[in-house]
Amino acid sequence: MKKRSFSELRQDIVSGDWVAIATARAKRPHAFIQSRVRQWYQPKATCPFEDPQEFGNKPPVLLYPRVRPKHDWWIQVIPNKFPVFHPGVCPPEISYGPYKTMEGVGFHEVVITRDHDRTIAEFNDFETELLVRAYQERYMALQEEGCVTYISIFHNWGQAAGATIYHPHSQLIAIPVIPGDVKDSLTGSERFFKKYKQCAHCVMTKWERKEKTRVIYENEEFIAVCPFTSRTAFEIVVSPKTHSANFEIMSGESRGLFAQALRTSLLKLSKALRNPSYNFFIHTAPCKKRSDYRFYHWHVEILPKTAIWAGFEIGTGIEVNAIRPEDAASFLRKQK
Amino acid sequence: MKKRSFSELRQDIVSGDWVAIATARAKRPHAFIQSRVRQWYQPKATCPFEDPQEFGNKPPVLLYPRVRPKHDWWIQVIPNKFPVFHPGVCPPEISYGPYKTMEGVGFHEVVITRDHDRTIAEFNDFETELLVRAYQERYMALQEEGCVTYISIFHNWGQAAGATIYHPHSQLIAIPVIPGDVKDSLTGSERFFKKYKQCAHCVMTKWERKEKTRVIYENEEFIAVCPFTSRTAFEIVVSPKTHSANFEIMSGESRGLFAQALRTSLLKLSKALRNPSYNFFIHTAPCKKRSDYRFYHWHVEILPKTAIWAGFEIGTGIEVNAIRPEDAASFLRKQK
Repeated sequence: MKKRSFSELRQDIVSGDWVAIATARAKRPHAFIQSRVRQWYQPKATCPFEDPQEFGNKPPVLLYPRVRPKHDWWIQVIPNKFPVFHPGVCPPEISYGPYKTMEGVGFHEVVITRDHDRTIAEFNDFETELLVRAYQERYMALQEEGCVTYISIFHNWGQAAGATIYHPHSQLIAIPVIPGDVKDSLTGSERFFKKYKQCAHCVMTKWERKEKTRVIYENEEFIAVCPFTSRTAFEIVVSPKTHSANFEIMSGESRGLFAQALRTSLLKLSKALRNPSYNFFIHTAPCKKRSDYRFYHWHVEILPKTAIWAGFEIGTGIEVNAIRPEDAASFLRKQK
Repeated sequence: MKKRSFSELRQDIVSGDWVAIATARAKRPHAFIQSRVRQWYQPKATCPFEDPQEFGNKPPVLLYPRVRPKHDWWIQVIPNKFPVFHPGVCPPEISYGPYKTMEGVGFHEVVITRDHDRTIAEFNDFETELLVRAYQERYMALQEEGCVTYISIFHNWGQAAGATIYHPHSQLIAIPVIPGDVKDSLTGSERFFKKYKQCAHCVMTKWERKEKTRVIYENEEFIAVCPFTSRTAFEIVVSPKTHSANFEIMSGESRGLFAQALRTSLLKLSKALRNPSYNFFIHTAPCKKRSDYRFYHWHVEILPKTAIWAGFEIGTGIEVNAIRPEDAASFLRKQK
């Protein structure tokens, strides 16, 4: 690995935005290992997700029961006890002086996997596929709700990544608007598609498979890469190799292969950086008018918390990545 | 203050993006006080900014000397020892497969104020104005460099806000491209201006001065408000009350009044949340072709680190603010 100082701007081909790769502080992969991270733990005995209803949560909206032990379960999805968005009638846009507001109507659910101490990286194939299936089932159910326009599926692991409960869990938030960043990504994807008659993500995937330097895992249908314009050190994007705009309609064999790609990526990350805090989220096309978003390519972004976004990053949107994605990928590939 | 649970989407009139205000977890202003924050401190004896050249830094590119004690100084600006961008010849855009890259050519400077233990909130008027003058002087000098297109001036205070050196300091980063977020803000401002024949920021300021609920400070020329679409709890925006696109050309009396508004805002924040970590940055129009950006309105954004942006925020760009800006402003106004 080259150790020379290096500073480069790379342009995202979808958004046109720039990221900075700056290794002036000459960090080698090992420097990102969160050795100083305090071991964060909440004991099982007082965990609100061990027996969610016992802790005052509502009954599950989805439950995958276990045959044995009886009354146990693999996964349950419950309404978030402290929802950011709450169910209600479709909200109108209300003018308030020069501003527009809208009641925060929507859904906020928590997907709880059974084991207090095992993260997705430690799941087996069956468990991972079950989790993906739960994401899809709840997505399908929520998109039928009248005013749901966009559904975000995400997972926060570790306190530094914003998790407040230790027990592994994911979340779905369904909202009545298309978020700004998603809108920008849709606009960029559509612009690219109209200009080049190809999907931007497909073009990148083709190039990545040819170059190989940023690929960390590949199976029959899915590929995991450290993107050329990684926003953070050790960012990983998992996506289908053939074009598809919608995560939720993936079925059967594909789901199993996706589960494998996701779990393997998280395992490599976990081994490489010794169980770092991370966020991942699924970017899939908005719910309504599915045919309008055929140019979009769904994917998962995995972002470990390897740095703090400070004044420059927040003020400009240019994130400074302290390791070349090529070097991060090389380090991740080695982890088995 | 109303304590009922509350969830609302508010639309930014410039970008069209939504932020969420969700007080379901019913936080009162006091809940944001960083009581658990470890006192972060680096001793003066080993501080690299007490005598920067002694610690191997280059000579200052700007120095405001002190008459007494002799050889002492108020402010010095030095090149960053570990620059994210480095001086060089103007970089061409280079195609690399489907991607575009550019060498990270630019400037990265550190603005050091003399006292190890006094933050801007504790400065007097003279010192604050001197700091603002240093920002301007370096901005003016850097914009003359051939390929500098945008200059970000920012300040990180506290470890949680990404500061790595305790001694109070600000930074300037000058780059050869217009950052994505800045471009979006320029596009949005221009669109608004063309549509309404008025500056969006001026429209908001007029409304805020009429409503008063989000205003925390005002003097003859500047106003500090918790924006209607605050992205984080206790966000403050300081801006000129009359239209101006460029921070760097402000002179004389205006500079003094701006310094007062900035310092007062930081002092209120510091008292309200007991010395929280925060970032602030100056959003001013890009350097070149100044006349092209007349529709833009420069401002400073102050963002205390009151929450961690997790999967939902990073994945959607919708930030969830746990306190109404009206309540934050009311609490900040009370701090003297």
